[in-house]
Amino acid sequence: MARALELALRGPAHGPNPRVGCVLVSPDGHPLGEGWHRGAGTPHAEVAALDDARGRGAVVRGATAVVTLEPCDHTGRTGPCSRALLDAGVSRVVIAVADPNPVAAGGAARLRAAGVDVVAGVSEQEGRAVLGPWLHAIEHGRPFVTLKLATSLDGRVAAADGSSRWITSQASRRDAHVLRAQVDAIAVGSGTAVTDDPALTARDEAGGLADHQPLRVVVGRRPAPANGRLRGPGGELVHAATHDPREVLALLHAREVRHLLVEGGPTIAAAFLRAGLVDEVRAYVAPVFLGAGRPAVADLGIGSIDGALRLEPHEVRRLGPDVLIVSRPRPHDPPPGTAQTIHLVRTPSEES
Amino acid sequence: MARALELALRGPAHGPNPRVGCVLVSPDGHPLGEGWHRGAGTPHAEVAALDDARGRGAVVRGATAVVTLEPCDHTGRTGPCSRALLDAGVSRVVIAVADPNPVAAGGAARLRAAGVDVVAGVSEQEGRAVLGPWLHAIEHGRPFVTLKLATSLDGRVAAADGSSRWITSQASRRDAHVLRAQVDAIAVGSGTAVTDDPALTARDEAGGLADHQPLRVVVGRRPAPANGRLRGPGGELVHAATHDPREVLALLHAREVRHLLVEGGPTIAAAFLRAGLVDEVRAYVAPVFLGAGRPAVADLGIGSIDGALRLEPHEVRRLGPDVLIVSRPRPHDPPPGTAQTIHLVRTPSEES
Repeated sequence: MARALELALRGPAHGPNPRVGCVLVSPDGHPLGEGWHRGAGTPHAEVAALDDARGRGAVVRGATAVVTLEPCDHTGRTGPCSRALLDAGVSRVVIAVADPNPVAAGGAARLRAAGVDVVAGVSEQEGRAVLGPWLHAIEHGRPFVTLKLATSLDGRVAAADGSSRWITSQASRRDAHVLRAQVDAIAVGSGTAVTDDPALTARDEAGGLADHQPLRVVVGRRPAPANGRLRGPGGELVHAATHDPREVLALLHAREVRHLLVEGGPTIAAAFLRAGLVDEVRAYVAPVFLGAGRPAVADLGIGSIDGALRLEPHEVRRLGPDVLIVSRPRPHDPPPGTAQTIHLVRTPSEES
Repeated sequence: MARALELALRGPAHGPNPRVGCVLVSPDGHPLGEGWHRGAGTPHAEVAALDDARGRGAVVRGATAVVTLEPCDHTGRTGPCSRALLDAGVSRVVIAVADPNPVAAGGAARLRAAGVDVVAGVSEQEGRAVLGPWLHAIEHGRPFVTLKLATSLDGRVAAADGSSRWITSQASRRDAHVLRAQVDAIAVGSGTAVTDDPALTARDEAGGLADHQPLRVVVGRRPAPANGRLRGPGGELVHAATHDPREVLALLHAREVRHLLVEGGPTIAAAFLRAGLVDEVRAYVAPVFLGAGRPAVADLGIGSIDGALRLEPHEVRRLGPDVLIVSRPRPHDPPPGTAQTIHLVRTPSEES
């Protein structure tokens, strides 16, 4: 399974389909073939592994298929993998993660019904990690949302005059471009689209456009400026003419967006946070003070410290002079405003 | 010298005197005695080492003294160490850091004049690090200033209603109490003294008062509230009836304060930053959003991103869910407002 998970990671992080890897093993434990899914419209991992084994002249009949996600039982852009495995005479299937997608699920049941020995839940945690935002999107019926912030130590994302290029270092900005190339869509508020005139493209270190360009989404009543860089080279431009984050996500879910990056400004950041629709915050914090200017997020309707929106740290990394703090909501925490955390009793050691 | 530096660190980080360690070594390389300075009014490291050697019955005549700071040549609370080393017949003195204090310096010259072999600058960088804020204070003729911030990810130090207990975790607050026990004075603005009613004491994990309590300094026209916790148990209360950070530091320097901790609020933080009088920022950043409330620092007079006050990272550490970011001014950077950094040329890879 470790090898299958490695293979899965060769697939693209973006796109409507999951990253899946598959290894075919002979009854006496020899590898026969391996495959991974290279993105929508290409063969699934199981079929790629079967092709690989056949190309090597291996006998697949009686083999074991080790696969990171339950084989699909659905004819979409490609045929069902459960059928392909049965046709090949595979006698055992080992699965990390059951398919959460109601449209595609049922592969394990079909295989079992046909007499195949199916073992599920092997290295399930690792398998879920590899599936990442895709899994979350399918389970929740909406894109996984990452909120990106590039702030000064005093929480500003622009100076008093609105200028913001650049608060963070080149190392941070490179990391942010790697992230852009991994998501399916990037959203900004219509105010930011006008004020900052962003291009919202994913670029490589040399400044060229990356192979994959995410959708560019402008949220709000106003469309993107007529002569703005958003209308230049890059991903398709989408106007979500609403202020409701739920509507934005429904629109993008219908377009099979699995991972949305919200890049600002403060109003859209606050709207998603208030709605409880941020799954991850990536805050690039620079050792810089501005003292005034645009705050990272607008009003969240939080009156007192008891109502603070508290996240859990997920990753902390130094990027040049900056610090990247990745945090995620605590499981089962309601969105801010509806929350009422338990008031802490003040102990002497905690007096200031 | 490594041993002498270890010994030096046994002394208290606070107080008017430096942390110094001394090892006496026989001509054939055997350790004869060791000592360190335990704080103002107690023997200096050299005298402690001589006492230790004599207590062991060792012959000091002809020995080498390895000492982390140039022996003093001054009679203060104790007699000059240069004289003590000469009287003991030490023939060689190895020094890490020359004494920057004009009042006490001259020990090396006196020793050399008496025929002692003096070697200076051995492990000088390590020696300077051990001397820390004391060295900075003596060299600059004012206390070393640490600005402490406890902020949310969006740069707030209090919620909309002013409540701020607690933004950061217990782990961060414990670290802050360790810091308080190491400094000579803590300053807050008179507004914070009223709003937050802080005690400004250093407490141990059990909540008891630490042995050393820093001076408590209220900066601004108004004195501390009559019935406030600042008037309860803790360090001496000092009222610096000025808004000028230079005057505050002059007052504290006259009281032999070497390390001042500025704890807030935004007005005093901004005043010290604007004056270029912050030597270190310790920002405890919690994965929390508030969306409104008191900002970490007030206006710094910075209009555009080009005028941003940029620091260098010094240390990044995780403390429970929080991240401690310690940063320091870049050498030779002028204070904000007077600065005009070079405008960066926008390259394609840096477009947003």
